[in-house]
Amino acid sequence: MSTPERLIESTRELLWERGYVGTSPKAVLERAGAGQGSMYHHFKGKPDLALAAIRRTAEEMRTTAEGVLGGPGTPYERIEAYLLRERDVLRGCPVGRLTMDPEVVADDALRAPVDETLGWLRARLAGIVEEGKERGEFAPSVNGEEIAAAVVATVQGGYVLARASGSPAAFDAGVRGLLALLAPRDR
Amino acid sequence: MSTPERLIESTRELLWERGYVGTSPKAVLERAGAGQGSMYHHFKGKPDLALAAIRRTAEEMRTTAEGVLGGPGTPYERIEAYLLRERDVLRGCPVGRLTMDPEVVADDALRAPVDETLGWLRARLAGIVEEGKERGEFAPSVNGEEIAAAVVATVQGGYVLARASGSPAAFDAGVRGLLALLAPRDR
Repeated sequence: MSTPERLIESTRELLWERGYVGTSPKAVLERAGAGQGSMYHHFKGKPDLALAAIRRTAEEMRTTAEGVLGGPGTPYERIEAYLLRERDVLRGCPVGRLTMDPEVVADDALRAPVDETLGWLRARLAGIVEEGKERGEFAPSVNGEEIAAAVVATVQGGYVLARASGSPAAFDAGVRGLLALLAPRDR
Repeated sequence: MSTPERLIESTRELLWERGYVGTSPKAVLERAGAGQGSMYHHFKGKPDLALAAIRRTAEEMRTTAEGVLGGPGTPYERIEAYLLRERDVLRGCPVGRLTMDPEVVADDALRAPVDETLGWLRARLAGIVEEGKERGEFAPSVNGEEIAAAVVATVQGGYVLARASGSPAAFDAGVRGLLALLAPRDR
């Protein structure tokens, strides 16, 4: 791996393990096995390096979600597959978690990829709910954007419950509760 | 306010603004206008002080939630009131947010009040859902614990969506989506 690659990957790991506030440039350099000079040669500083790391993590999250949401099945089945896909629940979401980092939220540039990714996910799910309404799978009265927000919130909040209790069971319970409410009536 | 009181209140503020990892004993002392000696006279150190602060915040959250959940109305109406109660959405939940703090989650003593409070909330909501099933407000097939987990997850994840987008609208959308799915069928 090239030095900028090692710096980005080390930053991604540390952001997930320690958060932005808890990630020092020194820790990144140590993990990447790089010198301060080479970091400043490739990146303007911690925010610039973090932005590259967050963008890459966001892109991966989008690709993973699209793999399930764009897969086979009815709209309900694709939402179900998204909610039930295997996750490292106790580690939480590497993108959503950044919203609890005060310095990320205060910095428009760092917040942008987080906002874009969650916004894309909500819009993608809203479209699938609308498709389900057209097919008669969901009631005509449901609002695609609201259901989409509830789906993404259940996942993001499920991580909170799991991490609080130290067990993935709370995540699973929330997802099953939402799916039971969302299930087509004629099942 | 007494010195220990000022120390606890300053720690609560800083935990909310900066998180546990981002809260230094020095910042607490500065905000409390207290000296290092007086902190160590009253508390064993940062974890001990943080524990007192987290316990107090958790107790307040519980009292606020019980004020709505134990209020008037049918089970659905009480859950609705809980979800719609006025919140400082962009600040997030001072308790739930701690689950994204790696040092809090890694420390069983600090995690305990977070786990207990969210566990209490889930159990309280599960009881209300069961009450609603008995009254015929909710379908007999719904599982109280799962619906309760979905309700708490939607709130906690709603904060994530709101903070990502910089607007409370995303929180509101998720809550409305869940309420639409949960609403008694004969409405």
